Amino acid sequence: METPRTELNELGEFGLIERIKTASTLRNTTSLRGIGDDAAVIKKDEKNVFLVSTDTLAEGIHFDLTYVPLKHLGYKAVVVNLSDIVAMNGTPEQITVALACSNRFSVEAIEELYQGILLACDHYNVDLVGGDTTTSRAGLILSITALGTAEADKVVYRSGARTNDIVCVSGDLGGAYMGLQVLEREKQSFLANPEMQPELEGLDYIVQRQLKPEARVDMVKELATLGILPTSMIDISDGLASEILHLCSSSGKGAELFEDKFPIDQMTYETAREFDLDPLTVMMNGGEDYELLFTIKQEDFEKIKNHPSINPIGYMKEAAAGVNLITKAGNSFPIKAQGWKHF
Amino acid sequence: METPRTELNELGEFGLIERIKTASTLRNTTSLRGIGDDAAVIKKDEKNVFLVSTDTLAEGIHFDLTYVPLKHLGYKAVVVNLSDIVAMNGTPEQITVALACSNRFSVEAIEELYQGILLACDHYNVDLVGGDTTTSRAGLILSITALGTAEADKVVYRSGARTNDIVCVSGDLGGAYMGLQVLEREKQSFLANPEMQPELEGLDYIVQRQLKPEARVDMVKELATLGILPTSMIDISDGLASEILHLCSSSGKGAELFEDKFPIDQMTYETAREFDLDPLTVMMNGGEDYELLFTIKQEDFEKIKNHPSINPIGYMKEAAAGVNLITKAGNSFPIKAQGWKHF
Repeated sequence: METPRTELNELGEFGLIERIKTASTLRNTTSLRGIGDDAAVIKKDEKNVFLVSTDTLAEGIHFDLTYVPLKHLGYKAVVVNLSDIVAMNGTPEQITVALACSNRFSVEAIEELYQGILLACDHYNVDLVGGDTTTSRAGLILSITALGTAEADKVVYRSGARTNDIVCVSGDLGGAYMGLQVLEREKQSFLANPEMQPELEGLDYIVQRQLKPEARVDMVKELATLGILPTSMIDISDGLASEILHLCSSSGKGAELFEDKFPIDQMTYETAREFDLDPLTVMMNGGEDYELLFTIKQEDFEKIKNHPSINPIGYMKEAAAGVNLITKAGNSFPIKAQGWKHF
Repeated sequence: METPRTELNELGEFGLIERIKTASTLRNTTSLRGIGDDAAVIKKDEKNVFLVSTDTLAEGIHFDLTYVPLKHLGYKAVVVNLSDIVAMNGTPEQITVALACSNRFSVEAIEELYQGILLACDHYNVDLVGGDTTTSRAGLILSITALGTAEADKVVYRSGARTNDIVCVSGDLGGAYMGLQVLEREKQSFLANPEMQPELEGLDYIVQRQLKPEARVDMVKELATLGILPTSMIDISDGLASEILHLCSSSGKGAELFEDKFPIDQMTYETAREFDLDPLTVMMNGGEDYELLFTIKQEDFEKIKNHPSINPIGYMKEAAAGVNLITKAGNSFPIKAQGWKHF
């Protein structure tokens, strides 16, 4: 009898994670939380925990070296991982880097990549403490593990949201995705006519959102200063739609989000229009913004209502209500994930 | 002016690590030790530390799926990483797994890989707490980060060996390399004649050393039971020659190793002869045995002299003496590394 063959794209990344999670058990009392959140939680001492997260960027899947300078790639790879520690309300402190690359890359190229990694370490006060460099048969693959700490009672999980909590998002959405569209357009123009100069003038913000995103370490500090402990949190790597569904599913809740409250930068909006894309779709499904999606108690609303970087965008509901978007026209639509499915 | 291009194989893996180490600085007081040993050391509390190590296995470089079953690959990938924690005299407790694979792999194949990973977790009482799965353009790349703990004053570095310390090795050497030779031969026979049955009878031990090595967690416990704290330690992943050079270089010492003291299994010896290979070369440069190379004080000799799995093979010397092998005939030769250079 032949073994059945299921394609990875049928199951998807989240389906695979779910299967692995089900198959793995936690034996050590120090393993407080395993697979299923932005980072694992490991006991440090009576009052503190370690946070550990691993993320991979693969050439041709997550980045295109035609327009991503290696230094930016190194920086971004660190940011992506620190963002996972931040999403647990923690402070990142160390990283390890596992790099697999083909002989196509020179020592100078790899050093440029590490310059970006070390620049991010410097910016975020994080130490590169270890790793591994090996050959691959094709392309470049960068796996980073980030380590951080948090007070045990300040760790914020995806699962803590309660009915009526206010859903908030930091910064603005969709910029990284529109930056990617602009870079892709320039690549096509260049391939068609190598004499062409890139037209990126005035598009700095969205190009930067794509090439050099930042992890919202500042937001963890800001929330502490405001005296707010979010009830749940996740970082926006795959787009708002995908992340609110994760948060609702982990918390066993529903949600209602209001389109007219979604934060978008003027440049993102105008570029989306220019590309004939719906700005709403760009915000919902764009991904790679590395902003934070979190919920706070109603009583904390006063503390954030005039905050320039914290945007309330809706409410948590009972699970039975589903996860819905209320459009500007007042219609309600169920939110579906269309985030990145790499398989 | 053009940027100079240095090929990765000119500099080598260790050269690259050295450059990265020089470029990185440790900012956080919790980062006790960074790049340069088997694992990084991070402060846990007043008396204990965390150990963190990352290692990568890449298809076509570290393994060949023609004869490595995915389940074994998963098991071995965990072992390789746990071995780094063990080499610091620590106890592994958690792992994260970053997997990049192409669509060539089915869900069933990836699940088989994870079965091996989870089997190793079960065997070593370690928890799989997180990770990441993504697509790659070609092949399979597996990066694992292992986390462990140790009492701060029991951590053993590569750098602590002192003149006259006794150099010891656990278990026996060269088996994994000869297992690889046997598997490669069977692959060639199979390619030449697919009807051929594999001739692995009586070769179980060395094939197992290659396909399903074990990390010497037992040795950490054994040394503690014997009341021995090694002065330095490293695991043998790249062959005895490469590792003794690392140990001497980190400790700023020389060494004298005696060929007639090197531990070799009868099957490894006979298979080497059959393949027309010098058993000495196989032990020195074979690699992948994941045994421990460590140094102990002279006064601890009595505790190990009749131990079945701990073999004294030489002495540490002043740096000026160099790192030498004394052959059975009594000649002295400087030891040179011929370990794996993947670039």
